[in-house]
Amino acid sequence: MDYYALPIANLIEQLSKLPGIGRKTAQRLAFYVLEMESLEADKLANAITNAKEKIRFCSVCCNLTDDDPCYLCKNDSRDKSIICVVEGAKDVIAMERTREYKGLYHILHGVISPMDNVGPNDIKVKELLNRLGDGEVKEIILATNPTVEGEATALYLSKLIKPLGVKVTRIAHGIPVGGDLEYFDEVTLSKAIENRREL
Amino acid sequence: MDYYALPIANLIEQLSKLPGIGRKTAQRLAFYVLEMESLEADKLANAITNAKEKIRFCSVCCNLTDDDPCYLCKNDSRDKSIICVVEGAKDVIAMERTREYKGLYHILHGVISPMDNVGPNDIKVKELLNRLGDGEVKEIILATNPTVEGEATALYLSKLIKPLGVKVTRIAHGIPVGGDLEYFDEVTLSKAIENRREL
Repeated sequence: MDYYALPIANLIEQLSKLPGIGRKTAQRLAFYVLEMESLEADKLANAITNAKEKIRFCSVCCNLTDDDPCYLCKNDSRDKSIICVVEGAKDVIAMERTREYKGLYHILHGVISPMDNVGPNDIKVKELLNRLGDGEVKEIILATNPTVEGEATALYLSKLIKPLGVKVTRIAHGIPVGGDLEYFDEVTLSKAIENRREL
Repeated sequence: MDYYALPIANLIEQLSKLPGIGRKTAQRLAFYVLEMESLEADKLANAITNAKEKIRFCSVCCNLTDDDPCYLCKNDSRDKSIICVVEGAKDVIAMERTREYKGLYHILHGVISPMDNVGPNDIKVKELLNRLGDGEVKEIILATNPTVEGEATALYLSKLIKPLGVKVTRIAHGIPVGGDLEYFDEVTLSKAIENRREL
């Protein structure tokens, strides 16, 4: 085990907890931080603290936002009769990049996965159902990832929502099965929205 | 350009300034931080602030330390007649990993590089010369990297130190030329120390 002064060892440990950052990379980043201007390092530390403090869930769509409701829910030019249900906040960014979709979103913050002990109550399903009470919403697009858990979640939601008289659609499998929504290009995602089919 | 809430955009920007972290990785890390426990995120932010606050240069060898003099300079069992001169603090970690070297270190924090406007006064040369006054030091091992700048720095230091009557050696080129000290295994580094030659 290498010897580091305690504050350096601690910094390396905290950095190596980040996804895709191994010990060697954490060590390189830590020494980079130590060689940074103090002002720059403060900016980084403050950005972390500040983001954690300011960002919470939008009370309507559960998107990550510093403003409640979020800029999408607040935007009067969006079509309020249609809600696109996605797994995470990153998927909203990917969808917005298409510039095709003009409706609202709902962010589940996960998928149903019995293997990982994640049930319907652990993701934002209740919050989604609460938005369907007043009859304003005419269609739900299920845009969970085409993985086993994503498909199961879509099926579960469609069975829950269809009895409420709301049209339920699924984005088309233009996206290769097993892929991740976040990584696809605008054209593929646009196609997937265009080809959505009723469940 | 993607839309992010301001604190998220700021976090992504700060993270993408780190070496080897592009925009996509910064985005993934930012969302990971947002999904972390608040306590964990605080630990990360504090580790950065704390390391910057607590870590300074050892007044003897210029190593990064939270304690002055550093644990190596303070250690009475180290051989005080020999100083290994390295470019950066990471190189000390690499050298210590060999468990062969028992002398002291001197960290230059850079190499002479006229192309980058780095001269002898911009690295810790003066601090090294200050350590040679009392005749206790019998040998200086120059362990700068075998790059053009590392070699030039070694040559410059040897010309400066030899007139003081101190033996000057260079670690052997067991390390491939153009490589970086930080990445070599213990055996290669041990060999390089063993085969050092007088300049």
